[in-house]
Amino acid sequence: MVDAVLFEFLHTEMVAELWAHEADPDPGPGEQKMNLLVLESMGFRVGQALGERLPRETLALREELDVLKFLCKDLWVAVFQKQMDSLRTNHQGTYVLQDSSFPLLIRMASGLQYVEEAPKFLAFTCGLLRGTLSTLGIKSLVTASVVALPACRFQVVVQRS
Amino acid sequence: MVDAVLFEFLHTEMVAELWAHEADPDPGPGEQKMNLLVLESMGFRVGQALGERLPRETLALREELDVLKFLCKDLWVAVFQKQMDSLRTNHQGTYVLQDSSFPLLIRMASGLQYVEEAPKFLAFTCGLLRGTLSTLGIKSLVTASVVALPACRFQVVVQRS
Repeated sequence: MVDAVLFEFLHTEMVAELWAHEADPDPGPGEQKMNLLVLESMGFRVGQALGERLPRETLALREELDVLKFLCKDLWVAVFQKQMDSLRTNHQGTYVLQDSSFPLLIRMASGLQYVEEAPKFLAFTCGLLRGTLSTLGIKSLVTASVVALPACRFQVVVQRS
Repeated sequence: MVDAVLFEFLHTEMVAELWAHEADPDPGPGEQKMNLLVLESMGFRVGQALGERLPRETLALREELDVLKFLCKDLWVAVFQKQMDSLRTNHQGTYVLQDSSFPLLIRMASGLQYVEEAPKFLAFTCGLLRGTLSTLGIKSLVTASVVALPACRFQVVVQRS
């Protein structure tokens, strides 16, 4: 019923609230970046907290690729009620996760002019991935890009210590 | 698995983020009130949006009391995975909804000294109730109070036009 969309609505409101603080209707790149960082770090902490709730057998996943597969399947279904559409890797610590219809982008109009608005709808989820990976013992950098709305791609680059 | 707690974690982060903006560690009553208003209005818009997703038969509920019962049962289960513990009314448009173990308060330590922190964990939900009621055609004022953590009480006063 309504529970599946609760996260989505709340996320929309968070984004709106952050950008509502902008007195300037056309905020500079600095303010824009600060908001994206805030969203990313909220996502990171939510991801960490979710990670701590995972069943023990998940925490015991030893292979990096298995952890990434877990995110694409279980985490995505839990948060977005769908699986990630594809996962590719260069087998050297870089993973590309593609969602051909990312729920947080679906409500955006699909014109090309909106592509520049997309980062604010991706920052939280980048953090969510990074935070969950962190709890699972993998330090990473996560970025996102949009080619054609509502498809997007998350790139995870594992940081070897 | 993790989906049940996603809303809770996200809510915690929202509250933390709003209060993080306070440069002053002991913000004045004005700033405190502004943050509570922000949370309440985010809750309102999420409630409105959720209301619009309700099945048609819910929207057709004609009796005020039935609408309130619906919130206590269906809405609460969807958002908090539990039902409200009791619902009382004076049959004159005032309803008292009691949750003896409100999920958003459970993580708070239960000392008396934390009771004054409680409003920030209740404001969003007051808005959520007000917003859902609004979509169901009922204009209301919703306030919350805490007697002993983690129990709390929401009071809904219907505004007759």
